[in-house]
Amino acid sequence: MGKKVKTAITPTRAEDYPEWYQQVVRASGMAEKSSVRGCMVIKPWGYSLWENIVREMDDLFKATGVRNAYFPLFIPVSFLEKEAEHVEGFAKECAVVTHHRLKKEADGALVPAGRLTEPLVVRPTSETIIGDSFSRWITSYRDLPLLINQWANVVRWEMRTRIFLRTSEFLWQEGHTAHATREEAQERTRMMLDVYARCVEDYLAIPVLKGRKSPAERFPGAVDTLCIEAMMQDRKALQAGTSHFLGQNFARASNIKFQTADENEAYAWTTSWGTSTRLVGGLIMAHGDDDGIILPPKVASAHAVILPIIRKPEDRTKVMPFVEQLASELREKTYHRRMLNIEIDDRDIGGARGWDWIKKGIPIRIEIGPRDIAENSVFVGRRDRHYKEKVSINKDTFVAEFTKTLDDIQATLFNRAVAFREANTENIGQRDLFYDYFTPKNSEKPEIHGGFAVSPWCGEEACELKIKEDLSVSIRCIPFTGASVKGACICCGKPATQEVIFAKAY
Amino acid sequence: MGKKVKTAITPTRAEDYPEWYQQVVRASGMAEKSSVRGCMVIKPWGYSLWENIVREMDDLFKATGVRNAYFPLFIPVSFLEKEAEHVEGFAKECAVVTHHRLKKEADGALVPAGRLTEPLVVRPTSETIIGDSFSRWITSYRDLPLLINQWANVVRWEMRTRIFLRTSEFLWQEGHTAHATREEAQERTRMMLDVYARCVEDYLAIPVLKGRKSPAERFPGAVDTLCIEAMMQDRKALQAGTSHFLGQNFARASNIKFQTADENEAYAWTTSWGTSTRLVGGLIMAHGDDDGIILPPKVASAHAVILPIIRKPEDRTKVMPFVEQLASELREKTYHRRMLNIEIDDRDIGGARGWDWIKKGIPIRIEIGPRDIAENSVFVGRRDRHYKEKVSINKDTFVAEFTKTLDDIQATLFNRAVAFREANTENIGQRDLFYDYFTPKNSEKPEIHGGFAVSPWCGEEACELKIKEDLSVSIRCIPFTGASVKGACICCGKPATQEVIFAKAY
Repeated sequence: MGKKVKTAITPTRAEDYPEWYQQVVRASGMAEKSSVRGCMVIKPWGYSLWENIVREMDDLFKATGVRNAYFPLFIPVSFLEKEAEHVEGFAKECAVVTHHRLKKEADGALVPAGRLTEPLVVRPTSETIIGDSFSRWITSYRDLPLLINQWANVVRWEMRTRIFLRTSEFLWQEGHTAHATREEAQERTRMMLDVYARCVEDYLAIPVLKGRKSPAERFPGAVDTLCIEAMMQDRKALQAGTSHFLGQNFARASNIKFQTADENEAYAWTTSWGTSTRLVGGLIMAHGDDDGIILPPKVASAHAVILPIIRKPEDRTKVMPFVEQLASELREKTYHRRMLNIEIDDRDIGGARGWDWIKKGIPIRIEIGPRDIAENSVFVGRRDRHYKEKVSINKDTFVAEFTKTLDDIQATLFNRAVAFREANTENIGQRDLFYDYFTPKNSEKPEIHGGFAVSPWCGEEACELKIKEDLSVSIRCIPFTGASVKGACICCGKPATQEVIFAKAY
Repeated sequence: MGKKVKTAITPTRAEDYPEWYQQVVRASGMAEKSSVRGCMVIKPWGYSLWENIVREMDDLFKATGVRNAYFPLFIPVSFLEKEAEHVEGFAKECAVVTHHRLKKEADGALVPAGRLTEPLVVRPTSETIIGDSFSRWITSYRDLPLLINQWANVVRWEMRTRIFLRTSEFLWQEGHTAHATREEAQERTRMMLDVYARCVEDYLAIPVLKGRKSPAERFPGAVDTLCIEAMMQDRKALQAGTSHFLGQNFARASNIKFQTADENEAYAWTTSWGTSTRLVGGLIMAHGDDDGIILPPKVASAHAVILPIIRKPEDRTKVMPFVEQLASELREKTYHRRMLNIEIDDRDIGGARGWDWIKKGIPIRIEIGPRDIAENSVFVGRRDRHYKEKVSINKDTFVAEFTKTLDDIQATLFNRAVAFREANTENIGQRDLFYDYFTPKNSEKPEIHGGFAVSPWCGEEACELKIKEDLSVSIRCIPFTGASVKGACICCGKPATQEVIFAKAY
C-alpha cells in the first residue's frame, strides 16, 4: 500500500472522475442541483465566472461590429416547423407551454387553465424567432450585414443531466447574422469561431482544436458547423463552442429576402454561433486537481485571499492593520482590465480555512502572522503548485510582482493543458490499434483512457456510426490544419479523404 | 388654425399620448412587438440602454455586498402554493409548461407529448424557488445575512400589453436577502429602495418619490412594500422599483431556519426587490418630446453623432479626415465610467439623416462641412434644445468642454422633469376639488390631465377602492416625508391618519 496522500476531494480524479467532478463542484460552492428536474442553481462563486466570461466575450463580439438585442423566450410551434431538419433536431427535447393560468379545483388543487390556441415552445435556440424579426428588418442590401447577438437562457429537456455540462436549462449567447453573399457569411462563421478560440485559449487557458463537424454532427438545419474542441483530464473531448454557416436554409424558412444592389431579389445568407455555461464545466475539468478547482487568474472570481494568522487575541491588533494595508495596496492594481479582487478571511476555523480556498481554486493564498510582519514578508501559496509548497517573500517585492505572478499562473495552466493534450493524442492509422486505443485495459478506469486519435476517414457516415456504436467514439472535428491524407479509412479500409479527430465526448 | 409646427413624431404628445409613445418607440428603433402574444423584441438601440442600466445598477448592488447567482426558470406548482397570498397573486397570469416534447401526428401536425407529472410554471418572480435554495444554504446565524441578486427574464401573462411598460415576458433583476433580525431586514429593504432612487434619479435623470404602498397595493405575501414613483408627461405615475419586507412569511413557507447565536432555532427575515425593462419605458415617457426620445447622456447608447456635410464628391476627402480626427479625440475621453461612444453617419439621404438621430434621442449632433473646417469649428445641436437651435463652436473648445456639455444636458433633463412634476402636483384637501382634479375637462384629452394629488386618507381600504372605482385613481405611495395630518379623509370625511399620493398609474 502506498502512503495515503491528503487531498481535499474524495475520490481523486484517477479513482472516479465523474464523481470527482461532482464533488469538486460541490466543495467549491459553484453550483448545485435544484428541485426542478435537470435545472441547476448557479451559486455566486460559479456565477461570477460566468459573469467574467460574458464580459470578456461580449467585448470581443462588439469589436467585430456585433450588437446585442433580446428576443422572446417562447417560440410558436409553427415557427419551429419551418425548417424541416431543425424541428426534427429539437422536437424531442422541448418544454411546451400549453396554458396561461392556474385555477383552483374543488379539492384545492391548482391545475392548468386557459389553454393556448397554439402551444409555445420554450426556446431551445432562436433561429426561427430571430429569423422572424430579420425578415422585417431586412429589405435592402443596405441593411446588410446584420450582426446580432443575444445573451439568454435556453431549455433542452435532457434525460441525463450533469451540472454545467448538460442541463435542461442553461445560459448562453447565440449570435445571428445575415449577409448579402455566401462568402461573407462563411467568413463571419469562421471569424466568430476564431473569437471563441481566442477567448477560450487566452482567457480560460484551455487549448482548443479548430475544425468542422462531419455532416452527421452538424447543427440541425446548418450547411456547415465549425467547432472548437478541448481535451478534459479524463481525455474526453468537450465541444467548447460552435459556429454555423446556415446557407440560405433559414432565410428561406423565415423569408429573409432583400433587394440587391442591381435591384434583384435574393435570400440572405445567415450564420449562428453559440457558447454556454458549459464552458464553466470545461474550466473545472481542464484545470482541476485532486484538491479542487484551479481558476485561471484572468477569469477568477477573486485573485487572492489573505489569511491572517491570529494565535493569541493580542495578535489581532498587530496583524489586521498589516493585512488591510496589503489588501488596499493590491486592490489599487488592475489585472486584465479588472480591478484586483482580494478577499480577507479571518474566520477562526483552523485548517479548514485554507482548504476552503484551495477547493475554491483561488490563484494565490497569502498567510500573514506576527513573524511575517516583523520581517515585512508574506507567506505565499500558489494554486498551480502543491498545497504544501509555500514561500516567504518580501512584502514589497510581492506587491510589485503580483500581476506578473498571475500571468505566470495563467501561462502554467495553459501550458500544462497543452502538454496533457499532446501526451494523449496519437496518430493512429490501423484499425486494430485504433480499437485497442479506445478499449479500457484491466488496470484502467473505464472513464479514463484513450484520448484523441488523429486518424484517416473515408468520409462515409456508415463508418462514423459503426465506430460510435462499437466504441462510443465520435468524430470531434475535421481539423482545418489537416494534412493531406494517404492512408486507408480507419474503419472500412477504403481510401481516406480526410484526417479527423476521434474521441469520446461530453 | 395655428401654424403647423414640424415634428418628427405624429401625433404629438398633446394630440394622443399613448399613440405618441408607440410611434416614438418605433421611430427610435428601440423595440417592436413580436409574433408571440404579449412578448416584445428589444432592438439594439433599446437593448443598449438596458445594458447600461444593468451595469450601473449591478455596481451599486455589489457595493452593498450583494452577489449574483442564477436560479431555475421553472417553478413546480407545489412551490408556488406554499405561500397563500403569493399564489393567489400570480396564479391568474402564469405560463404553464405541461409537456417536455413534441410528436408528429399522422396528419403531420406537431402536438405536445411527454406529459409532466407535475406542471411547471415559468417564473413570474422567484421567491419560492430561491427560498428552496436558501433553506439549504442557511443553517446558522453565521450564514446571515445572505445577499443574492438574479438578472433574469420573467413571465406574467398580461391581457393588455404595452412595449416596455407591461409585457408578458420582461427582463429584470430580483434581489433576495435573508437576515437574522427583523430590524436588519427592514434596513436592507430601505437600503435597496435608496439604491433604486439613486440610480433612477442620478443616472436616468428621472425624479422619484419614495414611500410605502397601502396594504391593498402590496406585493402578494409581503409585510411591507416600499416603492419609488415617477411622473410621466401625461401626468400618470410609473412605479419605477419596489422593495419588499417579507417578514418571516416566505421563510416559513420555504422553511428557512437558522440556529441563533444563543443556540435557539428561528426563521430568517427576508426581503426581495426588483426593477425591470419597464425603466426603459419610463425613460421614454419622462424625457421624450414631440420629436422623439431624449436620452440622458449617462445612460445614452451613444453620446454624439458626427454628420459630415458632403455636397460635392471632392468635399469628401476634405471633410472625412477632419471628422475621423474629431471622433478619435472624443473617443479617448470617458464619461461616467464609459468610453465615449461617437457615431459617424455619412449616409447620403438628405434631411432624413439628422431626423433619424433626433428621433433616436442622441444627446449631441455635430455637423461638419468644408466651411466649418476652414474655421476649425463645428456646428452643434443639443437634443435637449429645439432642433433648429444649433451653434458654431471652435472645435478645440468643443472637445475640451464636451463632457461638461453632457453634464449640462443630464442636469437639464432632470430639472425639467422635477419642474414638470412640481407644476402637476397639488395639495388637495376637499373631496369635490379632488374629484374635479381627476375628471377631464372638455378641452382636455382624457389621457392628459390631473397629476399627483397629495391628500389626506383615513387608512381604510374601502375609501381607496371607492376612489379607484370612481376615478381610476389609486394610492401610489404613502411618502416617507409625509407631514403630520390634521384634515379629513378625501373620500369619507372621517379623520385622516396619513397624507398620501393619489394618481392614475401605469
